[in-house]
Amino acid sequence: MGEQALDGIKILDLTRILAGPYSTMILADMGADVIKIERPETGDDSRQFGPYVNEESAYFMSLNRNKRSITMNLKSEESVEVFLKMVKEADIVIENFRPGTMEKLGIGYERLKEINPRIIYAASSGFGHTGPYKERPAYDAVVQAMGGVMSITGEKGGAPIKFGTSIADITAGLYTTIGILSALQYRNRTGKGQKVDIAMLDTQVSLLENAIARYYASGDIPKPLGNRHPSIIPFEDFETLDGSIMISAGNDSLWKKLCNALNLEDLKEDKRFKTNPLRGENYEELRPLLSEVFKSKDTEDWINILNSYGIPNGPINNIEDIVNDPQIQAREMIVDVEHPKAGNMKMPGVPIKMSETQGSVRSPAPILGEHTESILKEFGLSEEKIEQMRANKSI
Amino acid sequence: MGEQALDGIKILDLTRILAGPYSTMILADMGADVIKIERPETGDDSRQFGPYVNEESAYFMSLNRNKRSITMNLKSEESVEVFLKMVKEADIVIENFRPGTMEKLGIGYERLKEINPRIIYAASSGFGHTGPYKERPAYDAVVQAMGGVMSITGEKGGAPIKFGTSIADITAGLYTTIGILSALQYRNRTGKGQKVDIAMLDTQVSLLENAIARYYASGDIPKPLGNRHPSIIPFEDFETLDGSIMISAGNDSLWKKLCNALNLEDLKEDKRFKTNPLRGENYEELRPLLSEVFKSKDTEDWINILNSYGIPNGPINNIEDIVNDPQIQAREMIVDVEHPKAGNMKMPGVPIKMSETQGSVRSPAPILGEHTESILKEFGLSEEKIEQMRANKSI
Repeated sequence: MGEQALDGIKILDLTRILAGPYSTMILADMGADVIKIERPETGDDSRQFGPYVNEESAYFMSLNRNKRSITMNLKSEESVEVFLKMVKEADIVIENFRPGTMEKLGIGYERLKEINPRIIYAASSGFGHTGPYKERPAYDAVVQAMGGVMSITGEKGGAPIKFGTSIADITAGLYTTIGILSALQYRNRTGKGQKVDIAMLDTQVSLLENAIARYYASGDIPKPLGNRHPSIIPFEDFETLDGSIMISAGNDSLWKKLCNALNLEDLKEDKRFKTNPLRGENYEELRPLLSEVFKSKDTEDWINILNSYGIPNGPINNIEDIVNDPQIQAREMIVDVEHPKAGNMKMPGVPIKMSETQGSVRSPAPILGEHTESILKEFGLSEEKIEQMRANKSI
Repeated sequence: MGEQALDGIKILDLTRILAGPYSTMILADMGADVIKIERPETGDDSRQFGPYVNEESAYFMSLNRNKRSITMNLKSEESVEVFLKMVKEADIVIENFRPGTMEKLGIGYERLKEINPRIIYAASSGFGHTGPYKERPAYDAVVQAMGGVMSITGEKGGAPIKFGTSIADITAGLYTTIGILSALQYRNRTGKGQKVDIAMLDTQVSLLENAIARYYASGDIPKPLGNRHPSIIPFEDFETLDGSIMISAGNDSLWKKLCNALNLEDLKEDKRFKTNPLRGENYEELRPLLSEVFKSKDTEDWINILNSYGIPNGPINNIEDIVNDPQIQAREMIVDVEHPKAGNMKMPGVPIKMSETQGSVRSPAPILGEHTESILKEFGLSEEKIEQMRANKSI
């Protein structure tokens, strides 16, 4: 194991389920020491989420590799005292409770900052720590609905559709990570910590991309467009003999190459289709001409033909296809991890490839409380104190 | 304007269109000095993308605020020489060309590293700089199709649907940002730069979340599920009198509150629906009972009622709704920027809220080559040299 980018960074991780754990997974992959603080007995809610492998949650295992687990009951004074002791030596505290929860526990940012002015405190929540909705509970689906992304996803003329995974949680996790690393850069320069406040809803606005520019420029409210590009043609999917294929003929030169690839040489000189705007105007005539040809061969044949012409294309892979794809295999984007109870687990690899400090999956997700004792000892607690805390159900 | 997290960081930005510019937008928002190096005459391809406001591309403007623009023809030896001179003083070089392009121009990572061993070199591409697909061209739609996310997005039983914005580009931009900031942390510790290689396709695997765990645990290939949660009920959208609403009753206690809120008290004790697994088994009987009630009131009324019961809910907002939402306004997630040609522009704000170093939108997107002269002077070029380069069409 070589050096890693975030070696030496100690993170106290109070997060549960998805947005927070996704962020600390990335930080742990890059070498940070992530100490996951869980409720005694039950732990992170997602330990109860299926699917299960030998009674261990595959959901939990895939998000919590490379972390260590300690149980602490933060409603006990004794544990809060130990937590504050840990904060003195930590670089980062991260939580995704509803705003106000940390203050109720007596461990809000203002308190932690007094104890350690270098601490970086990151909070990820549904609506953020300010504004009229800050008290509202949120789940990914509600935030996707409110954030506008659903209103532009779906069949043309159809109803809004939710993204297939928890994109609002994941985006919040990515922005939380960027906020933490930026705060670290500031702290390296000045020695000062700070609070980072990420709202899932805010990050959805950041995903809207040109839909916002289109709305303000035209006044028209963008709608779902199916799998077609709003203005480039053809840039969409077609049925093949045995499945489907996505193609992107992004300019007139690629359009001509596509006509050659499809044996539709006549179309190159066809006045209806010579330019991209004309292909837009005459789309309803164009689409069936192309559709008919695509239906004549298997997807794999089309991939080979289109690649030989340099036309961007690809199959619409399902989950089985993509995890077995040769490029994904070559990039080590599916990795094997040995879990003491669940056995061999496969999960996504590290998508950040670095020449000097490649991140890696070094250890499986922890059993609940697996590292309670060793972590408490690292922070200077005696065996007697640890036993006493255990007797008090503080850990 | 207070201090910002990335003050003092100088970035040479060769990126075009979306993934790269999205990353450098975030870095610029956080205070980095982003020098956007563009082709003379045409510049970033996206300057040609609609919609337009006073002949300026709103697409381009919304992704390139806070950056400065210099034109350089990197096919001219003279410009390459100047570029290498700039690399000596820069912290980061970022590009999103097809792999091999930088080497052909004589400015590949190996060359830049000789000139400045502290340089962080970030490359964002469709398939990455290694593996069998590395030469293939890619567009967002092709990567979304290949990456598996489309195969789990769409109506239940329906065809795969693309996300409404360029999520493959955006995710690659977010991961590129995380890679750069992690490399910066390593450099702060060791003085060494490195290369960061991000593939859009890899990052799609990182979005698949529990779909991968579900696939490996069960062997079943996940499919689109519409807007329903795969295992929590009710956790979906309903039609109302004047629109629709998304609700998330994530546990039995919320289920009971929902029955009260809908005036369906009898259902609380109904044996068919008492637990989440039972609600799953009897979903087809449950859904119509709830649907009927939701159709009786406007969305706004339901929001008020459900909020008073503490049930997570929200409207399915369109783009106009979300940009005018009170929470989004309070969080300054839509900001006004004055552009010298386009006038007042509205665009997404900065979703990373930081207590000490709040990022901000300080300047509009640059006119093509707006800062060519001032930047070249900063790097020590004389007026004579600049004029000569202009005469040679090197800038």
